[in-house]
Amino acid sequence: MSDLRELLTVRPGNARLADIDPRSTPGLPGKQAIGDDPKRWSQAQVATISEQLNAYQERLFASAKEGATNRRVLLLLQAMDCGGKDGTVRNVTQGMSPAGMKAVSFGPPDEEERRHDFLWRISRALPPAGHVGVFNRSHYEDVLVVRVHNLVDEGEWSRRYDQINAFEAEQAAAGLTIVKVMLHISKAEQKKRLLARLDDPSKHWKYNPGDLAERARWDDYQRAYEDAVNRCSTAAAPWYVVPADRKWYRNWAVATLLRDAFADIDPQYPAPDFDVAAERARLLAAD
Amino acid sequence: MSDLRELLTVRPGNARLADIDPRSTPGLPGKQAIGDDPKRWSQAQVATISEQLNAYQERLFASAKEGATNRRVLLLLQAMDCGGKDGTVRNVTQGMSPAGMKAVSFGPPDEEERRHDFLWRISRALPPAGHVGVFNRSHYEDVLVVRVHNLVDEGEWSRRYDQINAFEAEQAAAGLTIVKVMLHISKAEQKKRLLARLDDPSKHWKYNPGDLAERARWDDYQRAYEDAVNRCSTAAAPWYVVPADRKWYRNWAVATLLRDAFADIDPQYPAPDFDVAAERARLLAAD
Repeated sequence: MSDLRELLTVRPGNARLADIDPRSTPGLPGKQAIGDDPKRWSQAQVATISEQLNAYQERLFASAKEGATNRRVLLLLQAMDCGGKDGTVRNVTQGMSPAGMKAVSFGPPDEEERRHDFLWRISRALPPAGHVGVFNRSHYEDVLVVRVHNLVDEGEWSRRYDQINAFEAEQAAAGLTIVKVMLHISKAEQKKRLLARLDDPSKHWKYNPGDLAERARWDDYQRAYEDAVNRCSTAAAPWYVVPADRKWYRNWAVATLLRDAFADIDPQYPAPDFDVAAERARLLAAD
Repeated sequence: MSDLRELLTVRPGNARLADIDPRSTPGLPGKQAIGDDPKRWSQAQVATISEQLNAYQERLFASAKEGATNRRVLLLLQAMDCGGKDGTVRNVTQGMSPAGMKAVSFGPPDEEERRHDFLWRISRALPPAGHVGVFNRSHYEDVLVVRVHNLVDEGEWSRRYDQINAFEAEQAAAGLTIVKVMLHISKAEQKKRLLARLDDPSKHWKYNPGDLAERARWDDYQRAYEDAVNRCSTAAAPWYVVPADRKWYRNWAVATLLRDAFADIDPQYPAPDFDVAAERARLLAAD
């Protein structure tokens, strides 16, 4: 496990969100390495990591050809409103091919989804072998917004932590590497970003008057997040809390976590199942 | 319609593939504009166009919020093996967010798909309002490989041209802008690219010994392509034939065609459905 994963992993039962400063930058190299412009440093780092992700993704995709592997990767992002989920998705996927990658956003369940178990729509959206999935929100909403607003009774949502752990363990056993990231912002940073949305007409569509009612429940959400990351950080699928007030740190950290997950898989191009020299001769002899 | 669309559109009944040089570069600006390095020029152009596509895509996505528009875009790519479909997808989507875009590859239909009409799996994969879809192969395979190999009888495949036209017209009426591109390579270029695959171990997974049997049917495929683009280039969904032996021209041309399609739609950010000043005051007054 790399240093960054060590630093950001939630150790079940011990994580207190109030103790994690959203402006902190755990694992960041020293000033000498970064120079005077951390944003620029981060952009360059993420560009380099994107090339690595691109190479890993192609090898993962290739290795799954003809069913040779069941390995697949999921980046799962959760955050308060304005936490930076969209920006992170865009940033860390910049080098990846859309052919082997799918981003899915989960809103409130629709009518058909409500007629199923809460994990039904999640299962259907998981990446197949060789592919990469990105979840913008997820089944964790079923122990976050659902809990805060009592959309189901406590008996039901409190059972879900174990159900989620069992589901994720089953998926991990079936080849899925799950990188679960909570983008952790401060209440002050959220206010700043909501204000920025209101002050930029090209961002009005992202604003919803209901956002303020949710903001008023900040502490309830923090408690729900704290329980979720503590109860569902498992060996099969650990939770990472990424301080996210500084976008340049967040982008670097999430890209690094994803890259390290790929490095563990270390996918390889499959060996050819044909005689390369013979095919070469056939091709040259052909019209 | 821009110059490039004029130049590359198939005028039904008149297009002969043999008359279109795969090494030609229709619509390319003059030597003064391009300079000595066309590859570099193309990369810079595509980078600029990518930023435009990115901006258009965000506005299209935003405009579909709350069901305010049914507009959506599909880039559909067809080509002979090694025609450059994967590379083109990767290149023209480089600036787009995966959140509003999905790339779909169509292989031979699976068991469930075979139990349905040939357009069933296509309908299901179309982008929803506000989204962009990219098809790597498509329903046109059902009048290409299916016709060349007599996978269904002639009575059946020959009816499909009209069925496709009716289907695409219906989708266009429902808000879909379809950009259909045939990447047109020469037989010599295919040989060169197949050889390159055999000579690079990291590309062996893309090679299939069956490719040579398909190559032997080159003329049959060209005839099938010629019929497809002539019979299915309609006002609602024209076909473009892009000379594709030169990858830098191909990338520039496809990116330009897609950008021009977005320019026609000219999606706009929706007006806020709330009182911006009032929300601003509420936010500032909040905790």
